[in-house]
Amino acid sequence: MAAEMILPENFRAAGLACGIKENQSTFDLSLFVSETPCSGAGVFTQNQVCGAPVKVSRERVPADSIRAVIINSGNANACTGERGIEDARWMTQQVASGLDVDENQVLVCSTGIIGHFLPRSPIEVGIPEAIRQLDSDSKGFLNAARGMMTTDTVPKQATRTLLVGGKTVRVSGVAKGAAMIAPNMATMLSVILTDASLDPSQTDQMLRHAVDRSFNCVSVEGHTSTSDTVILLANGAAGSGSYSEQELSELQAVIDEVAVELGQAIIRDAEGADHFITIEVAGTQLRAEAFEIAQTIANDALVKTAIAGSDPNWGRIVSAIGRTSVKLTEQDIVLHINGTLIYKSGVPAEFDEQSVSDGIRQNREVSIEVQLPFGEASVVFWTSDLTQEYVRLNSEYTT
Amino acid sequence: MAAEMILPENFRAAGLACGIKENQSTFDLSLFVSETPCSGAGVFTQNQVCGAPVKVSRERVPADSIRAVIINSGNANACTGERGIEDARWMTQQVASGLDVDENQVLVCSTGIIGHFLPRSPIEVGIPEAIRQLDSDSKGFLNAARGMMTTDTVPKQATRTLLVGGKTVRVSGVAKGAAMIAPNMATMLSVILTDASLDPSQTDQMLRHAVDRSFNCVSVEGHTSTSDTVILLANGAAGSGSYSEQELSELQAVIDEVAVELGQAIIRDAEGADHFITIEVAGTQLRAEAFEIAQTIANDALVKTAIAGSDPNWGRIVSAIGRTSVKLTEQDIVLHINGTLIYKSGVPAEFDEQSVSDGIRQNREVSIEVQLPFGEASVVFWTSDLTQEYVRLNSEYTT
Repeated sequence: MAAEMILPENFRAAGLACGIKENQSTFDLSLFVSETPCSGAGVFTQNQVCGAPVKVSRERVPADSIRAVIINSGNANACTGERGIEDARWMTQQVASGLDVDENQVLVCSTGIIGHFLPRSPIEVGIPEAIRQLDSDSKGFLNAARGMMTTDTVPKQATRTLLVGGKTVRVSGVAKGAAMIAPNMATMLSVILTDASLDPSQTDQMLRHAVDRSFNCVSVEGHTSTSDTVILLANGAAGSGSYSEQELSELQAVIDEVAVELGQAIIRDAEGADHFITIEVAGTQLRAEAFEIAQTIANDALVKTAIAGSDPNWGRIVSAIGRTSVKLTEQDIVLHINGTLIYKSGVPAEFDEQSVSDGIRQNREVSIEVQLPFGEASVVFWTSDLTQEYVRLNSEYTT
Repeated sequence: MAAEMILPENFRAAGLACGIKENQSTFDLSLFVSETPCSGAGVFTQNQVCGAPVKVSRERVPADSIRAVIINSGNANACTGERGIEDARWMTQQVASGLDVDENQVLVCSTGIIGHFLPRSPIEVGIPEAIRQLDSDSKGFLNAARGMMTTDTVPKQATRTLLVGGKTVRVSGVAKGAAMIAPNMATMLSVILTDASLDPSQTDQMLRHAVDRSFNCVSVEGHTSTSDTVILLANGAAGSGSYSEQELSELQAVIDEVAVELGQAIIRDAEGADHFITIEVAGTQLRAEAFEIAQTIANDALVKTAIAGSDPNWGRIVSAIGRTSVKLTEQDIVLHINGTLIYKSGVPAEFDEQSVSDGIRQNREVSIEVQLPFGEASVVFWTSDLTQEYVRLNSEYTT
């Protein structure tokens, strides 16, 4: 049975349709509020062309007194100049005034079309309404997951609990992003909430650890959006005080799990994709080396079209590995596809091509495993295949 | 009127079907021979997983006594271990013995499927036959252009002449590579021949200069093949002796032109592509910076699907620029598509979207111009769009 999607203690959420999107009944506004100040951290797009909300939120974290995150979909408020910055600040002021907090205690994200000014009127009505609807049960949480959707076909939520010092700590998160359709360049947003007690520096470290193993390990077309943002808020309401190293490590594992589940959900919501591909690279000296190899395979159009065609095309994979900066020769590579040995010692293995091909055709999941002999580092990366439907969807969208 | 495709002085060529390919009448062997020793240089794939012929030829250049280049298509002799190396050397021995030269005077390239051992029998018959058919007129040259084709739909040749010290110098080249179809990972091979007098070091420098501005500036899916090779041979038969700086510079320009024409021909032979895209990036401090930006745009699946959909999607282009390592802000970017100003000063320009979109739809050529304010460096890059047909062709091919 799936876990019930509920918020950690003392968090409330709401989501609604305020009229930013053309279809007036489609949700386009989400609000997350903690009843007490949170340690807050954020990881933002590294794209130098970034949305106004990224610029505003980035200056406000890490911090020890975040109270809310306001998110709109339908308009990314990116490439909107100085007026865009003012609009993003104005959104946080509207929330701050309704909650009676300082605007610096509010973070903001926007996703949708870029190059258009934010429409203030619907948001001006929507924010007070969202504050009124704030709800600590699963309905508010689900609505908030809906309010940030753009081309997503399903809302994305994940939750986990763990016992720390006899007290239940919960970690719950939402994400938006539908990898294959990219009218707004596949913007990925996520908000993760926990009632654990963390200081801002711990919150920041834990978020970066989780993002490195989740959202940074999913890729569809290798394009970093102007608005990508992941936020972690910890309000301490579980009341467990300060943690031992062991407890912090258990908490980290749970935050990682929530982030991985949300990151995978983005790949799984890839309209136009036929396969969910897990790429495991092991045996490098540095994690960064395994990461580079996994990412290169994941972004390789020839590998991705081969999987779409159910073709265990080891040549394309081995060649992708060869063009990374990781020093190696073809002798070093051992490759398995769906558990079958495909390539070893510089030459293809003897394997039943038909049966491997059938295995790819008949299952949505594909595993590509690369083993190298250089060390103990490893990375798991997720992507989807490249189908004709992907191209149709991405070329038929018009700005 | 198109230039007549003929070889430089004292070069001969041949191409034929020897039976490597399943269809016994499809050409699969090419031979280029100079009657006198040439200065020879090569530029090879930087992929660490490379074909046996790359390993063999790379050791033999730069050199002052190259006499021949033997090329087979239908089998790349890559990922074939030690036996592959022996097979590649054997090919050069067969040619050397027929021409009565040393095997080190012969270079070798192979293109086709990887992971299969080279079939020696057809080649053993084919090489003496190719030597018999060697021809200095346009027929031998055209046949040689055909013998290296894999998924190419047309043979690719280019030729130029210039006067140096009152003597006519000719530069002629062939290339293979059909960018969009990549069963053998879009291997690109080119042989450029000239009767100019160059020493090995000049030959090497001139080839690298030309490749940097031609084959390195074409990209379809960003995948570097295991077998990419470009060779330049200069036999001095034009008899013009040593050149002034000015003459060398004029000769360089002509070699560049031949290489650019061949590189563009590879993009134009992109089955499944609808648009030939020229990307000009100007105004960086370093050429490498302009190159990185142009390459990032050229390899961006979202930009390429947008062009396929006739969408002047400035957001995807600006975002691609932003994710390069070149320090800039959105204010710095001026973008034109097909001559129309699309984006400037951090916001989209006012332009007639319908008319720009119609312009893309109605023409095979698309120009993307990026102007930056940092310096005088610039790069021109060529690519094609990403269509459903591309994906169909690449996913339906099976190893």
